[in-house]
Amino acid sequence: MPVERELHTPEARQLLELTRELVDKELIPRAAHDEEHGTFPREVFTTLGEAGLLGLPYPSEYGGGDQPYEVYLQVVEELARGWLAVGLGVSVHSLSAYPVAEFGTDEQRAALLPSMLEGHTLGAYCLSETTSGSDAAALTTRAEPTGDGYLVNGAKSWITHGGRADHYTLFARTGAPDSGGKGISCLHVPADTPGLGSAAPERKMGMNSSPTAGVLFDDVRLPADALIGEENKGFGIALSALDSGRLGIAACSVGLAQAALDAAVSYSRERHQFGRPVGDFQGLNFTLADMATQVAASRELYLSAARLRDAGRPFGERAAMAKLMASDTAMRVATDTVQVLGGSGYTRDFPAERYMREAKVLQIVEGTNQIQRMVIGRHLAERA
Amino acid sequence: MPVERELHTPEARQLLELTRELVDKELIPRAAHDEEHGTFPREVFTTLGEAGLLGLPYPSEYGGGDQPYEVYLQVVEELARGWLAVGLGVSVHSLSAYPVAEFGTDEQRAALLPSMLEGHTLGAYCLSETTSGSDAAALTTRAEPTGDGYLVNGAKSWITHGGRADHYTLFARTGAPDSGGKGISCLHVPADTPGLGSAAPERKMGMNSSPTAGVLFDDVRLPADALIGEENKGFGIALSALDSGRLGIAACSVGLAQAALDAAVSYSRERHQFGRPVGDFQGLNFTLADMATQVAASRELYLSAARLRDAGRPFGERAAMAKLMASDTAMRVATDTVQVLGGSGYTRDFPAERYMREAKVLQIVEGTNQIQRMVIGRHLAERA
Amino acid sequence: MPVERELHTPEARQLLELTRELVDKELIPRAAHDEEHGTFPREVFTTLGEAGLLGLPYPSEYGGGDQPYEVYLQVVEELARGWLAVGLGVSVHSLSAYPVAEFGTDEQRAALLPSMLEGHTLGAYCLSETTSGSDAAALTTRAEPTGDGYLVNGAKSWITHGGRADHYTLFARTGAPDSGGKGISCLHVPADTPGLGSAAPERKMGMNSSPTAGVLFDDVRLPADALIGEENKGFGIALSALDSGRLGIAACSVGLAQAALDAAVSYSRERHQFGRPVGDFQGLNFTLADMATQVAASRELYLSAARLRDAGRPFGERAAMAKLMASDTAMRVATDTVQVLGGSGYTRDFPAERYMREAKVLQIVEGTNQIQRMVIGRHLAERA
Amino acid sequence: MPVERELHTPEARQLLELTRELVDKELIPRAAHDEEHGTFPREVFTTLGEAGLLGLPYPSEYGGGDQPYEVYLQVVEELARGWLAVGLGVSVHSLSAYPVAEFGTDEQRAALLPSMLEGHTLGAYCLSETTSGSDAAALTTRAEPTGDGYLVNGAKSWITHGGRADHYTLFARTGAPDSGGKGISCLHVPADTPGLGSAAPERKMGMNSSPTAGVLFDDVRLPADALIGEENKGFGIALSALDSGRLGIAACSVGLAQAALDAAVSYSRERHQFGRPVGDFQGLNFTLADMATQVAASRELYLSAARLRDAGRPFGERAAMAKLMASDTAMRVATDTVQVLGGSGYTRDFPAERYMREAKVLQIVEGTNQIQRMVIGRHLAERA
Repeated sequence: MPVERELHTPEARQLLELTRELVDKELIPRAAHDEEHGTFPREVFTTLGEAGLLGLPYPSEYGGGDQPYEVYLQVVEELARGWLAVGLGVSVHSLSAYPVAEFGTDEQRAALLPSMLEGHTLGAYCLSETTSGSDAAALTTRAEPTGDGYLVNGAKSWITHGGRADHYTLFARTGAPDSGGKGISCLHVPADTPGLGSAAPERKMGMNSSPTAGVLFDDVRLPADALIGEENKGFGIALSALDSGRLGIAACSVGLAQAALDAAVSYSRERHQFGRPVGDFQGLNFTLADMATQVAASRELYLSAARLRDAGRPFGERAAMAKLMASDTAMRVATDTVQVLGGSGYTRDFPAERYMREAKVLQIVEGTNQIQRMVIGRHLAERA
Repeated sequence: MPVERELHTPEARQLLELTRELVDKELIPRAAHDEEHGTFPREVFTTLGEAGLLGLPYPSEYGGGDQPYEVYLQVVEELARGWLAVGLGVSVHSLSAYPVAEFGTDEQRAALLPSMLEGHTLGAYCLSETTSGSDAAALTTRAEPTGDGYLVNGAKSWITHGGRADHYTLFARTGAPDSGGKGISCLHVPADTPGLGSAAPERKMGMNSSPTAGVLFDDVRLPADALIGEENKGFGIALSALDSGRLGIAACSVGLAQAALDAAVSYSRERHQFGRPVGDFQGLNFTLADMATQVAASRELYLSAARLRDAGRPFGERAAMAKLMASDTAMRVATDTVQVLGGSGYTRDFPAERYMREAKVLQIVEGTNQIQRMVIGRHLAERA
Repeated sequence: MPVERELHTPEARQLLELTRELVDKELIPRAAHDEEHGTFPREVFTTLGEAGLLGLPYPSEYGGGDQPYEVYLQVVEELARGWLAVGLGVSVHSLSAYPVAEFGTDEQRAALLPSMLEGHTLGAYCLSETTSGSDAAALTTRAEPTGDGYLVNGAKSWITHGGRADHYTLFARTGAPDSGGKGISCLHVPADTPGLGSAAPERKMGMNSSPTAGVLFDDVRLPADALIGEENKGFGIALSALDSGRLGIAACSVGLAQAALDAAVSYSRERHQFGRPVGDFQGLNFTLADMATQVAASRELYLSAARLRDAGRPFGERAAMAKLMASDTAMRVATDTVQVLGGSGYTRDFPAERYMREAKVLQIVEGTNQIQRMVIGRHLAERA
Repeated sequence: MPVERELHTPEARQLLELTRELVDKELIPRAAHDEEHGTFPREVFTTLGEAGLLGLPYPSEYGGGDQPYEVYLQVVEELARGWLAVGLGVSVHSLSAYPVAEFGTDEQRAALLPSMLEGHTLGAYCLSETTSGSDAAALTTRAEPTGDGYLVNGAKSWITHGGRADHYTLFARTGAPDSGGKGISCLHVPADTPGLGSAAPERKMGMNSSPTAGVLFDDVRLPADALIGEENKGFGIALSALDSGRLGIAACSVGLAQAALDAAVSYSRERHQFGRPVGDFQGLNFTLADMATQVAASRELYLSAARLRDAGRPFGERAAMAKLMASDTAMRVATDTVQVLGGSGYTRDFPAERYMREAKVLQIVEGTNQIQRMVIGRHLAERA
């Protein structure tokens, strides 16, 4: 039974309905197989693009869906319920479009957004580096201003869609080596730019259908209009993008947790021990109740953050809370789902073990949960 | 700094503003003293009644405030932030009015509601008995139908406002002793009815300003129109009332937790150790971040349940989730607040220890959290 | 740095020293590779047998090591620290020898034990079935008494070493179908007995070097002296064996958790962010402290249970506690280790992700942790 | 039923037997009443002294009991099971004797120890100050060397037995104001020394029979032989004493947790709901199992630390772990006990609510649990 949602427009209801259909028909039937074989489902993104699901929170003027974040994120949640790699891929793609959409010039928007938002191209977000994971301001990839553009050298790591994306939203140092957060710029880089390469994909515990790879910049020359926003002002763009990106991860987390919870509840009704459905035993029943409560609370928390964003109010703290709580919930619920299924849960014959392997990444990406706590703690201190 | 709230009408914003003023002026200055001395602040309820805060979710036709539950509950939260005994008292009072408002005849509504909703009288809700705490259907207090009314004998226990209320909303057995949930009726009993008495108040760990006492029925004669709803259909009324009552407890829990969080954050900025505010140490900072996240999530969960109720949709499962999570959060946050304050937190010079003593009751009242899990588990099984 | 241990004899200290050497030389160098390729390291067990590590808690008269459980379990812990599949394999092998050693006749002991305890043969323990996981007394595999022996038909599932063992310690129904725990017998079955087969190994989330498979009995004829203990008294043997087996799982859990903790601490010293080792940040530091505390407590709990067993005192409740706590600790610590390593932890380049996948099985095998809680709860009720 | 213990000598078994008798006859019958009235049971300590329980871990040469810490701590645990204020008082008294016993001259030992260890006098440990709780090295109480002794001025705060002790083991600054941990000395101060006074006792959430008060030093003159150990070397003594003191708190925590667990189990067998003992419901049963497991693990952890200490091996890290885990367990178990008892648990008619109020202090005293984590984390880093 689908999750009952608060949706305020017929359009939103149709979007969710459409999403659920796509999830049931296009995602769920192939997720387990593709994940096992590490297949990147590029064509699924094409399908989503054709369905109008790759540009939802952006202006229709540029091919977007004009949807509030409250609706967009529920679409992401539903996608992640069917296949986390796809939900997260959509979130990352949206993130890659954010700097152009928010900080780009009208020319850049007109030139770059339509193909992204209509889903003809897939984006990646190039911020982290091997030695600057949580400490993003310490990045060392260099974009040397050359007068007529930039010369980029360096390496980005742990990039979702790395080596598979059509364009990269890059953060690189244009200021002095010790300029910290004040010498970073945001640049748009088409994947076929000479000198751009990618490392072998990471071999991960899960999410094998979501390619993660280093992206290498070897004397990559970019024109002046590759710059998004002002020079040396890119770090603020990155942080702002992350606020929204975290909401995407929160929605993905809730989707995955919901899938796990659904699997656990189903199994608890079907499996019998001691002559009764195992779900009738209070020990298991209370576990399921706690799981369901955490999932519901995580959903409401990200939705509240989305409504703040949609209302133009500050939402960074709430987004960090939503990411923290939802990903912790996903990890706990997925682990408990394996337990509810017992031995079966530990086998690859059921999706529970995959959910558990996938959930872990959510506590790490777009700011580890330690970083989220730092963000929240800083807000608390400022308000005190 | 007050909690930033989503409020959709100017009236709601004014109500919350008014409530915060009352809390700051009338509640907080006397809460610690009255709790220490076990004083029941009857006149505070009079003040709230005069301010129109005792009938918020009921029709203005009968003296109520015509407010959605989403707004009413935020008022309860703010009251509980200042003084849990008052927030919970308002929730219980509202609960006592619910059966008349929802299941009473027009005559009963007209006769009984105005004095309740305008706050001239204070109500109590008489369901639990010593031997039927969680198993409400096992109650034994007898309301023998006498042809022209009822003859009530028995004892209720653990009744908030017991001995201090002006009227009691009573659930008693009108059917056969073994009729379980099918032989229970709801009755309205003025406090001055002959034969009605009360036991000595419970000596509790906290909430000493909120009288809890047994209510005794010794040949109490009630007229036929004391019956609310149909005879023997009272158990459904009780369960329905509890769904709403649990939302009140959830709101109270969030209010208490917010008060504790605020105290912890303030202290962590003022107290220095090793030459820095203790809140600058990540160990404490992360604890505060977790506390704040749980409080925010609990609030959003009860608000979502309230919106379901306001929209006329089923909300019992969500209310149980909200009560479970919010009261667990209150207990955890209050305990952690004492820890943040260290030795000071353990003394009666700071409110932290009181918050901790008070929080525990929230995991117990209106269905222990074990009962909430049973309710949620049953809903999950039914949907599976 | 090796864990500092309380060991009371020079022999015990030498055993642990020997074990650590074997672990460092023979296990750790190949664990990751073999697990990735699903290779069962049969020859490692031969090596352990030659080193005298496969019969430690049994009498030297029959080839065992005459070691107390307190020492044997620490050997298992060290093995599991290097490679869980091996530690658990040794525990299962020991479990398979337990019924003969404890309930067999002198003739059976003399005939069967030496090859087991000297490690020439590897054993498996055949109790669970598809439809009777937690409810062991409901097993349906039939061992029909034929006058001169037994005719076995049925299927066992989720058997460690299934298809690879040299002998199976089988529990089958010799009584009426509805005889529950009172009609079960324990039988010794050589792997080459005609009619015995095995299903394809389970495809699991982890522990791929530890084969788990169904074992099939198709008109398997056993002689009368295959019976261990009395006919129809096998369920007591099974329960008694499980008490000891749970201690083995507890020791395995502590070994795995220690390996994860060591990896987390090392990484936290080497990895720098914001100009310092990440382990210097209190957020991470406190997590490591909690992990280390849980590991130490889990170890002391299983050791205390072992000492009870060694002293001939009841230890079933303590063993259940040790299994419950140690496996929960392993799961939590392994999950936190991935978090400490961040993105690196999620890749297969570090063992953290493998530890996390492996830990989960420990909460499930030899009685799920729900079953352990039932066992403990029953003891509490009996003592009350 | 008493906890089954590993005790290795007849003397130890008799000591524990004696302690249990004293607890049952002298402590439990008056604990609730005295705690409610804030009565300090000075004569109970006299009784314990006469029974030889106030000097257990010290040499018999000076009136002590010559018992290993493993035995002494189990006595403290049993005392705390009956009455936390007494268990903690014995631990603090032992702590106050530690510097003389370990660092005093033979003359000081002969002069001071007998009256302490035979229980004629009661001691207090004066380390913390208002502005240097966790940061002990920042203390400012001054002991100015005067040539023939010391002139002490300053104030200690949060001192157990403050104003009631017969002697104070004081840590004061003899070095320069900025000498940190390198300018602190340990001094023995009889309570009747002129200029020594005490503040009003703290009003606490619980432990009202254990007086906690500031101790004031106003031109207090001490002779030269008041100095314990070397001048300016007192901080090392304080830290060393705390290692042992933490074990005392761990033992107290386990005693309190055991008392709470026993109360919860008893109630769960006696109280019926839905026609069965509430302990038969798995929801409650699993909670009790988790509680019992945590209590057992906490006990084994402190015992293992005690054995390290008794063997002359480093035990500071293990002591910190034991204090951390045992006090967290006490808090959780006491809170859950109130929940198991439901409404009854919240009343002062049962000891559950008192246990919960008392447990909190254990997470704070002798180094907050944040400090314990710092200690453990530092050890982990050093070993890495």
